[in-house]
Amino acid sequence: MGPAPETVTDPGDPRLDPYTRMRERDLVGRAGRFVVEGEVTLRLLLGPRSRFRAESILLAPERWPGLADAVAACPAPVYLAAKAVMSAVTGFPIHRGVLAIGVRGGELDAAAPVPPRPAPALVLGLAGLTNHDNVGAAFRNAAAFGADAVLLDAESCDPLYRKSIRVSAGAALIQPFARLPAGQDWLRLAQTLDLQPLAFSPGAVEPLDALAVPARALLILGTEGPGLDPATLAGARPIRIPMAAGFDSLNVATAAGIALHAIARGQGRLDRAGTVRTGPA
Amino acid sequence: MGPAPETVTDPGDPRLDPYTRMRERDLVGRAGRFVVEGEVTLRLLLGPRSRFRAESILLAPERWPGLADAVAACPAPVYLAAKAVMSAVTGFPIHRGVLAIGVRGGELDAAAPVPPRPAPALVLGLAGLTNHDNVGAAFRNAAAFGADAVLLDAESCDPLYRKSIRVSAGAALIQPFARLPAGQDWLRLAQTLDLQPLAFSPGAVEPLDALAVPARALLILGTEGPGLDPATLAGARPIRIPMAAGFDSLNVATAAGIALHAIARGQGRLDRAGTVRTGPA
Repeated sequence: MGPAPETVTDPGDPRLDPYTRMRERDLVGRAGRFVVEGEVTLRLLLGPRSRFRAESILLAPERWPGLADAVAACPAPVYLAAKAVMSAVTGFPIHRGVLAIGVRGGELDAAAPVPPRPAPALVLGLAGLTNHDNVGAAFRNAAAFGADAVLLDAESCDPLYRKSIRVSAGAALIQPFARLPAGQDWLRLAQTLDLQPLAFSPGAVEPLDALAVPARALLILGTEGPGLDPATLAGARPIRIPMAAGFDSLNVATAAGIALHAIARGQGRLDRAGTVRTGPA
Repeated sequence: MGPAPETVTDPGDPRLDPYTRMRERDLVGRAGRFVVEGEVTLRLLLGPRSRFRAESILLAPERWPGLADAVAACPAPVYLAAKAVMSAVTGFPIHRGVLAIGVRGGELDAAAPVPPRPAPALVLGLAGLTNHDNVGAAFRNAAAFGADAVLLDAESCDPLYRKSIRVSAGAALIQPFARLPAGQDWLRLAQTLDLQPLAFSPGAVEPLDALAVPARALLILGTEGPGLDPATLAGARPIRIPMAAGFDSLNVATAAGIALHAIARGQGRLDRAGTVRTGPA
């Protein structure tokens, strides 16, 4: 059992310091900490697949009974404060009454989460994704389709930014990720990790649907406007997601979802349990 | 050629009335009008595939030269106003300097955009989608994969809401859509339109990847929490998108994108132009 919850009534209580001025701190950073919001995400933070530890948990008192089981094994302190107190602390209205502070710890090396040959491998590479919603959504899709790792270049934003975690539905807390090492590019990294680089681009010729799925794949996606840089496109295998004529436009995270689904299916890594009904079409 | 642009300097100018108090009007509605933001979306509104007509266009003067070609054939008045005036009119900062008011016109009948048998048909049904981002993103995917129509139940929000249009990348302006008629349910509608109803649900047994693609399909998706109602699931063919074990969670618009891609591919309606490179995997 973790410690008994402590009730806090003063928004100025120093124990709640990491929860203060939440939006300002989103911009300036949290010195190795991040914020988790909501029950689903908190359960992932505290669960067996979490890559991070909780530093503290802040709940509205009415949320405590429903979460006591999830929190039981966690050694972090649990603070109970009315939603009005939580809102005064954070600086905006708290509706769900579930917050936590997590600790980042050290960053992973890019090679660490990628299984070595001859195991199959599925890695998502995000290039220049400066939108937190897109990064969060891409992580959600990576986790849903069982990617081994998400790699991000220096321009892509932080998966542990508050909004990224929320949009990822907590996937950012369980999905291994790493930064592209300084001085590395996607092609050299793919060579180092023994992955075939697939560069997704609307301008590519080869359609995803005709691809012989590689057993070890690095799926590289860039931003919707500029797309991937010419060197990456030239050195990788450019792949196009076939679309209808006249509206050749997919959100980058959705494109990642479709690409991950196709490659994961081809690699046989998706859940195939269940009886296939063979009724009339 | 349309009329010459008229310069407006007074935020109180009555010609700009439809652009005032934009966020408040998002909530109360616009009496048969909608707002279009940004160049890509304006070009779709004015283009050959648009389902709607523009009532007026409001541009920052520096945007006029780049858009004069797109606006040339449009009979609606074009107003030029500095971004500071545009911001004063709308009530929030206007960065891109491109706005327009569109006219909804009459709503389509649900049957109108669905080609009759024996033509193949691909229709997306959205059930209870109360989030404007999800509706917009689903429209973007429907247009990208060439769906004939998007049908929405009474609970789903308006595809012509300002944010829905923006998130759809303008797809809401070209993608035919209609409301589920009052007193109809998805199953009766599918029967009327001679479509096979496929109900997407994480709890379904039959995986999407093993499905013999029906030539005429209605893909029904519900919200992430409650999902589809039991009657729809019981009467339709429930389909599951296979995922990795342990994180069985996709955003509803992403799930729609993956489902649309698979069915559109199976129906042979996607662009297959281009030479397939057959190099080593």
